[in-house]
Amino acid sequence: MEDNKYIFGIRAVIEAIEAGKEIDKILVKKDLSSEMADELLKVARENKVVVQKVPIEKINRITRKNHQGVLAFLSAVTYHKLEYLVPQLYEKGQMPFVVVLDGITDVRNFGAIARTCDCAGVDAIVIPERNSVSVGADAVKTSAGALHYLPVCREHNIFGAIKYLKDSGYKVYGASEKATQNYTTPDYSTPLAIVLGSEEKGISSDVLRQCDGLVAIPEYGHINSLNVSVAAGIMIYEVVRQRKLHGNE
Amino acid sequence: MEDNKYIFGIRAVIEAIEAGKEIDKILVKKDLSSEMADELLKVARENKVVVQKVPIEKINRITRKNHQGVLAFLSAVTYHKLEYLVPQLYEKGQMPFVVVLDGITDVRNFGAIARTCDCAGVDAIVIPERNSVSVGADAVKTSAGALHYLPVCREHNIFGAIKYLKDSGYKVYGASEKATQNYTTPDYSTPLAIVLGSEEKGISSDVLRQCDGLVAIPEYGHINSLNVSVAAGIMIYEVVRQRKLHGNE
Repeated sequence: MEDNKYIFGIRAVIEAIEAGKEIDKILVKKDLSSEMADELLKVARENKVVVQKVPIEKINRITRKNHQGVLAFLSAVTYHKLEYLVPQLYEKGQMPFVVVLDGITDVRNFGAIARTCDCAGVDAIVIPERNSVSVGADAVKTSAGALHYLPVCREHNIFGAIKYLKDSGYKVYGASEKATQNYTTPDYSTPLAIVLGSEEKGISSDVLRQCDGLVAIPEYGHINSLNVSVAAGIMIYEVVRQRKLHGNE
Repeated sequence: MEDNKYIFGIRAVIEAIEAGKEIDKILVKKDLSSEMADELLKVARENKVVVQKVPIEKINRITRKNHQGVLAFLSAVTYHKLEYLVPQLYEKGQMPFVVVLDGITDVRNFGAIARTCDCAGVDAIVIPERNSVSVGADAVKTSAGALHYLPVCREHNIFGAIKYLKDSGYKVYGASEKATQNYTTPDYSTPLAIVLGSEEKGISSDVLRQCDGLVAIPEYGHINSLNVSVAAGIMIYEVVRQRKLHGNE
């Protein structure tokens, strides 16, 4: 987090939102109350910027300057909107392939997945607004720069994003240890979304139910816990393998 | 490294070697010279324990106790010998599959690869004595415990290990960005070794020449640098996929 750029002060943050700067999230001290504070919250709501109410100590740990109880993290990347991106992908005439990350908070895993997505020619990563990694300078660094090229869609929630993808003709497969279907079984030669959850919790249950199918990577060992970025690589490159085989890379 | 167990003092280290304790390597200060020191070097040589001559400051940074210029790192795992393991694998009646790591020094990548090997049912990892990760407590931790189960063979050098594997009927494939053959092309339904190099240097050139074939994971992006543990996962699970398909898991 330390590497991320941020701005602070009520007026400065309002101006940044109104200027259309990409903001990851705004920290606001719990008991902030003034006319200006109300204006900030209104502007944030109108522009769909995430606001988190936090103890003032949390903001103090980031800066001791005169932050007035308000601090905004600037995004290191420009977020895309799924509703704009999906038609664009169809227009490109290729077989679209997006990777949806549900609750991945480890920046190193996120960066490694972004690297893999770049290599494999994945069209975009979809993450939720909350309960996700912060796509700051540290994420860009661990992605070896892949996040400078790979579109990231930050959607209000994953459930809605998947519903939108399905309505747009995508097949959506979720990776789950409990799945009975091997990840090599489905035909991935369709517009496609692969959903991956965190190592600890997996995909959340409402998102699981929304998937067209669940798939598992077979495990034969004692530990049986693939790192999530490795599991992502295995699944993503199975899609690449199948599409290469069928001539629709 | 801080997590690794170590012992120090000339006599203590000699006794540890003679007692058959698994030692990762011994640090000896550069100008150490005495009758006891000569005995230590002789015993180390006889037992094929790696000795590194280092400036005394390096040992001082690990402990300020009375180390007499000698410190030995104990292994967190019991190393196996390839010449014992290979016949054992044939006796098990399965199709053997080992993963050879040439110059992987990042403990987190090593741990993730060990996790994948456990999950995929890989029979052993082969590493060289020098220019490799230290298989200490931190490696075991990042492997999520996989290294408690997965045999690790630490061989004098990778070149010799590969030659031995080929003489034993293994096909040896090296992963190289420069390869023209796709990693999905070879038939992996043979006794098999997959060789992976470090992200920076790849596989060393003498080892590359020793391989039966070189294979590449196709890349379509801007960055085109898969994390080595992700690349390992993709290649290892291609072997699993093929063998499952042919009924010889």
